[in-house]
Amino acid sequence: MRMRKLPWAEDFLKEQEVVIKEPSTYAGKWKQLLNKEVLHVEIGTGKGDYWILMSQKQPENGWIGIEKNNNVAALAVRKYTKLEEAMSNVAFINDDAENISDWFEKGEVDVIHLNFSDPWPKKRAHKKRLSNEKFIRQYADILNDDGEIQMKTDNSSLFEYSVIEFQKCGWFLHDFSVDFRRNEHDEDAISEYERKFMEKGQPIYRAVWKKYPIKNEN
Amino acid sequence: MRMRKLPWAEDFLKEQEVVIKEPSTYAGKWKQLLNKEVLHVEIGTGKGDYWILMSQKQPENGWIGIEKNNNVAALAVRKYTKLEEAMSNVAFINDDAENISDWFEKGEVDVIHLNFSDPWPKKRAHKKRLSNEKFIRQYADILNDDGEIQMKTDNSSLFEYSVIEFQKCGWFLHDFSVDFRRNEHDEDAISEYERKFMEKGQPIYRAVWKKYPIKNEN
Ligand SMILES: C[S@@+](CC[C@H](N)C(=O)[O-])C[C@H]1O[C@@H](n2cnc3c(N)ncnc32)[C@H](O)[C@@H]1O
Ligand SMILES: C[S@@+](CC[C@H](N)C(=O)[O-])C[C@H]1O[C@@H](n2cnc3c(N)ncnc32)[C@H](O)[C@@H]1O
Repeated sequence: MRMRKLPWAEDFLKEQEVVIKEPSTYAGKWKQLLNKEVLHVEIGTGKGDYWILMSQKQPENGWIGIEKNNNVAALAVRKYTKLEEAMSNVAFINDDAENISDWFEKGEVDVIHLNFSDPWPKKRAHKKRLSNEKFIRQYADILNDDGEIQMKTDNSSLFEYSVIEFQKCGWFLHDFSVDFRRNEHDEDAISEYERKFMEKGQPIYRAVWKKYPIKNEN
Repeated sequence: MRMRKLPWAEDFLKEQEVVIKEPSTYAGKWKQLLNKEVLHVEIGTGKGDYWILMSQKQPENGWIGIEKNNNVAALAVRKYTKLEEAMSNVAFINDDAENISDWFEKGEVDVIHLNFSDPWPKKRAHKKRLSNEKFIRQYADILNDDGEIQMKTDNSSLFEYSVIEFQKCGWFLHDFSVDFRRNEHDEDAISEYERKFMEKGQPIYRAVWKKYPIKNEN
C-alpha cells in the first residue's frame, strides 16, 4: 500500500487510547481488557474498513486490528475516533506482526483474519507473506484448538501458495471458494481492497483453515 | 454432454480392437498389453481429443480412455481409427467407471486424469461426481503409492467440492492452480471442453493430488 507520509500520524497514534502501546503486556488478558469472550484479530487492517465494520456488526466479540504502516494505521484509527458511537470492543496494534506470538497467550485467539494481504510476488520475499510457514507456526500457537484462520484475496499466486503452505504445516481446509462473491454473505464486510477488485470484476478467493480435520457430516 | 443418438455407434464400437470388451480380464496385465511401464487413465474422455493428443505426445506411456456414453465414445474411437499413424500405446473402455477398481489391479495405475468432468450441481447427485468419496476410495486402490490424480475443470463448485472431498479422504494437494492457463504448459493438451471455456475467457482450475504429503524442499 503506497501512501504519502502523514506528518501527524505518529503523534496522533501515541495519543489514542485504542492503540495499545506494549501489546505483549496484555498477553492472556485481551478478553478481560475488552470484556468479551471471543477474540478476532485482523492482521494488516490497511485503512481499517473491515476492522471497524465487523466490530460494529459483531459487538458481542472483541476485534483487534494490527497494522505496521504508521500512515495507514493513523487513517484507520482516525476513522474509528470519528464514529458517532464509541465502541468498547476494539483495540489496535500499530506494529509488525512478525512476533505476534509474543502479544497473545497460547490459545487466546479465536479467529485470525487475513484480508488482501500483500502478495510479495518475488520468490525470495515469500517469507514476508502473512501465510508463510513462519507466521503459520505462530498462528497455531495463539489460536485455540477450535480456532480458525480466514483469508480473502484477489491474488491467485498468493492464494495457491497459501493453500499449499497451510497444508504442508498440517492444517485443514474447512471452507474454500474460488469465487466468494458468487453468492451473498450478509454477515460479512467488504474491505477497501476487496471493493476495488470487485469493481474490476475479479474473482475473490477465500479459504478457512483449522488445525483439525473436518468431521464428516454425511 | 448432450448428443444425438448415432445409429452406427454400438456396432462400430464392437468391431474396434482398441475397445476392450471385458476390461476386468486385463486387471494386472495392462502394462503388458500395451507394452509400456507407465499407465495413464482418463475417465470421461468425451470425444477423445485429450486422450489421443496425449498418447501421441507421450508414446512412451500407455493411455487408457474411459467413456460411458456410446455416442461420444464412438466419436472418440473413430477419431483414433482415422489417425495417419496407428498407435500401439492406447486402449479404450466404453463403460461406466463406477466399478473401476474391478478393471485394474491394486497399484497398477500411475496417473488418473479427470478433465472437465460433469459438474452434477444438485446436492443429491453429488455422489455421481467423479471426485466423490466413492470414486476416490477406488482411485486409492488402483493407483500406486507415488501415483497421482490430475483434475482440470471450469466449474468452480465442482472444484471446491473436489478439493474438500480429497482432503476428507486424507489425500494431499501437490499442485493447485485457480488460473491454469495464466502460464504456458507446453507438455499438455487442451480438451474440447477446455477450449470452449478458454474461448469464453473463463479461468481453468487445476489440482493434482497424491496419497502422501509433499516433501518439504525448502
Ligand atoms: C494490501 S493491504 C490490504 C489492506 C486491507 N486489509 C484491505 O483489504 O483493504 C495490506 C496491509 O497489510 C499490512 N501488513 C503487511 N504485512 C504486515 C505485517 N507483518 N504486520 C502488520 N501489517 C502488515 C500492510 O502495511 C498493508 O497496509
Ligand atoms: C463434460 S464431458 C467432458 C469431456 C472431455 N473430458 C473434455 O474435456 O472435453 C464429461 C464426460 O464424462 C463422461 N462420464 C461422466 N461420468 C462417467 C463415468 N462414471 N464413467 C465414464 N464416463 C463418464 C460423460 O459421459 C461425458 O462424456
